Amino acid sequence: MPGSFVYEDDRAVAFLDVYPVNSGHTLVVPKTHMADLRDCPPDLAAHLFAVSTRLAPAVVAAVEADGFNVWTANGRAAGQTVFHLHLHILPRFTTDAFGFRFPDDYPREAERAELDAVAARIISQV
Amino acid sequence: MPGSFVYEDDRAVAFLDVYPVNSGHTLVVPKTHMADLRDCPPDLAAHLFAVSTRLAPAVVAAVEADGFNVWTANGRAAGQTVFHLHLHILPRFTTDAFGFRFPDDYPREAERAELDAVAARIISQV
Repeated sequence: MPGSFVYEDDRAVAFLDVYPVNSGHTLVVPKTHMADLRDCPPDLAAHLFAVSTRLAPAVVAAVEADGFNVWTANGRAAGQTVFHLHLHILPRFTTDAFGFRFPDDYPREAERAELDAVAARIISQV
Repeated sequence: MPGSFVYEDDRAVAFLDVYPVNSGHTLVVPKTHMADLRDCPPDLAAHLFAVSTRLAPAVVAAVEADGFNVWTANGRAAGQTVFHLHLHILPRFTTDAFGFRFPDDYPREAERAELDAVAARIISQV
C-alpha cells in the first residue's frame, strides 16, 4: 500500500491519514496488530504517545496550525472504525470546522458524593 | 482542593473531572506544571499515557461503558480551556451524546501528491 510516511522505528510508523480532518492529520500506528488500547502493553502505548509528542510540533509547524489534539478511539461506541490501534495527531486551526459535540446539559458540575462513589468503583477495578 | 482521586504516583495523579461529559470521565495530570504537550518531556508524556492505558479498562468496567476515548487538547484552537496539561479518559456508551463534529466535506479522500507534499514538510521539521 502506498503511504505518506513521516516516521518509522522498530515498533511504530506514522503516516498521513488519507481522509484528513485537517491538513497534516497524522496517524501513529504500532507495527504489531492489536485492535485498540485494551490489547496494548503499557510500554508500547507509552512509546506510541512519546512518538506522538515528538511529532506533533513538527506537524503543527508544517501546516502552520494553532494547536493540536492527540486522541485515540477504542471500540465502535468511541467512534473507532479501523480496528487496528492508531493515535491521531490532528492539527487545529482557530477557524476550523472540527470539534467536540457535547451532551445538551454539558457542562454540568457533578456532586462530590457522586464522583467519590464512581472513584471508589474505579479503584476497586484497578 | 477536594478531588475524587483514582491514582497517584511520583509524577502523576488521576481524578474525576468535576464537569464529566459521561460518568467516569477521568483526567490524568502531571504533578509538575506545563501548559500542554509541547512543554512535556517525551518520557513524562509516555508515562502519562501508560497510566491512562492502565486506568482506562478500570474506568470502563466501573461504569459499564462500551468503549473509551483518550484525548488531549493543546492550545485554545484545540479546545483546551485549562492550561495545565491533562489527558482525558472518556468512557463511551453506544447511545451517548458525545462525539466528534467533522467538517461538512468529511470524509474526503486526499490526493497522494498533496499528502506527500505535507509529509515532506513534516519530515523537514522533525
